[in-house]
Amino acid sequence: MSKVDKDTSPEAAQQDIVRLKLSQSPVPDIELQGLPVFAPGWVWLAGAGPGDPGLLTLHAVNALKQADKVVYDALVSEDILSLVKPEAELLYAGKRGGKPSWNQQDITDKLIELAGQGHRVLRLKGGDPFVFGRGGEEAQALVAAQVPFRVIPGISAGVGGLGYAGIPVTHRDVNHAVTFVTGHLAGKHENELLDWHAIAKASPVIVIYMAMSRLAVIADLLMAAGRAGDEPVAIVTHATTPNQRVVTGRLAEAAQMAKRHKLEPPSIIVIGGVVDLASSLAWFGSLESAD
Amino acid sequence: MSKVDKDTSPEAAQQDIVRLKLSQSPVPDIELQGLPVFAPGWVWLAGAGPGDPGLLTLHAVNALKQADKVVYDALVSEDILSLVKPEAELLYAGKRGGKPSWNQQDITDKLIELAGQGHRVLRLKGGDPFVFGRGGEEAQALVAAQVPFRVIPGISAGVGGLGYAGIPVTHRDVNHAVTFVTGHLAGKHENELLDWHAIAKASPVIVIYMAMSRLAVIADLLMAAGRAGDEPVAIVTHATTPNQRVVTGRLAEAAQMAKRHKLEPPSIIVIGGVVDLASSLAWFGSLESAD
Repeated sequence: MSKVDKDTSPEAAQQDIVRLKLSQSPVPDIELQGLPVFAPGWVWLAGAGPGDPGLLTLHAVNALKQADKVVYDALVSEDILSLVKPEAELLYAGKRGGKPSWNQQDITDKLIELAGQGHRVLRLKGGDPFVFGRGGEEAQALVAAQVPFRVIPGISAGVGGLGYAGIPVTHRDVNHAVTFVTGHLAGKHENELLDWHAIAKASPVIVIYMAMSRLAVIADLLMAAGRAGDEPVAIVTHATTPNQRVVTGRLAEAAQMAKRHKLEPPSIIVIGGVVDLASSLAWFGSLESAD
Repeated sequence: MSKVDKDTSPEAAQQDIVRLKLSQSPVPDIELQGLPVFAPGWVWLAGAGPGDPGLLTLHAVNALKQADKVVYDALVSEDILSLVKPEAELLYAGKRGGKPSWNQQDITDKLIELAGQGHRVLRLKGGDPFVFGRGGEEAQALVAAQVPFRVIPGISAGVGGLGYAGIPVTHRDVNHAVTFVTGHLAGKHENELLDWHAIAKASPVIVIYMAMSRLAVIADLLMAAGRAGDEPVAIVTHATTPNQRVVTGRLAEAAQMAKRHKLEPPSIIVIGGVVDLASSLAWFGSLESAD
């Protein structure tokens, strides 16, 4: 990026974010490095956060502005993708109604191919790439192919999405441990992938990703493991976006709640006493009660 | 914020981040709202992330640029605080060698007092305000005092800090559950606050905050609960900063590792198979081995 002083062109305005920390440092001896330059042939694995473009990190914005090719998933919004430079190419790697979606091998092959062609390749995922995001697998493939990469963490919906619902994942009176699990495989195998019994005991608060279609099974598993049917639960869909919905109720009725309120993915489910805080702390949008 | 076109003053440059999404939308029918205006009398509870200023969210930068008073904790860097406007007042609420630090009541009293005086009050914490950050308690106090607030989630060190160490908190071959706990109270009470036995069984990967001084106790508790002494463990200190250090070794020797390598807080400890990925995926800084 060339240095442009007092340039009022749109390109210059777009570079201001990169220069932000340099341009306004009142204390010259503090090292305020600019954000990194995206070198050709690199892949940056970035999280786009839960939805609200304001939850993008500076690194993610910096990546979007420099990328030549953006390989993105279903949960990355158009608002966020609109930050790319005009000549950047957007490649959709998520599921698409009717059409077969790329598998993990297709994605890594594509990343390696594009990097090999000398492009600046941004692999952009919803949330954080390392929280149930298969970012580790993609990074391993890049290492194997000797493609240089960096990681840009993002806000995960299980933390930030619940924060927008007024639900702290930890609260001193309630819990000193929180467990994050994926729900999409619950009840699908004879041997459960997760030790629900131990999870139920270990963690007063359980946050479940990708659980919408398995809610009844999960509630049964947790109740069989000793969690009370009247324990508070919240279902948060489209967290942090204008379409955010938060429905609170009781564990035993979670699946019915989702059905009655016509809730649809993407969702985050949270079980535990912290849900009760939502009634006073919900600050973004409204709260629906199952009752 | 007034509209300033082609204004080349520093103030205008600083506002570009707020206008970012408006100024460059190539698709006019996508709603790219600007970032919110910080109204006088409000408190914004924000997370500053693990350290790297590039991991600030746009909302956090927007908050820093508008705040009149910033009440910040020990883990918020000077780099990040330098983003405030020149007339903003910085109030340090963290621990300070020798001097008594503010307690939780002092902090909430101050937030309420400053908001009542009509200031734009930014409460800035390291990481995420709702991940072992007492953000929920502060929000409850604001609600009780009828002070309007919003929450700005941040990147938590237990996710993003480990990402900088090349350690995904989840990896499909290793775990479908991850548990986050605080370690600072381990072994301090006759009745452990945490059910370490259940945690050891529930979660192949355990991430422990504030654990440095309790490492020996925690390792013993986990091994007594069935975790193997040769299970991989990583200690990550000053994650995402130029001082980041990552030391990997085995659970049984965790406390000795920390001592031998002279590791100091702030730290994140991670136990589980994902630690093995660091040897190939560490991309930021170097890796130290306990051997």
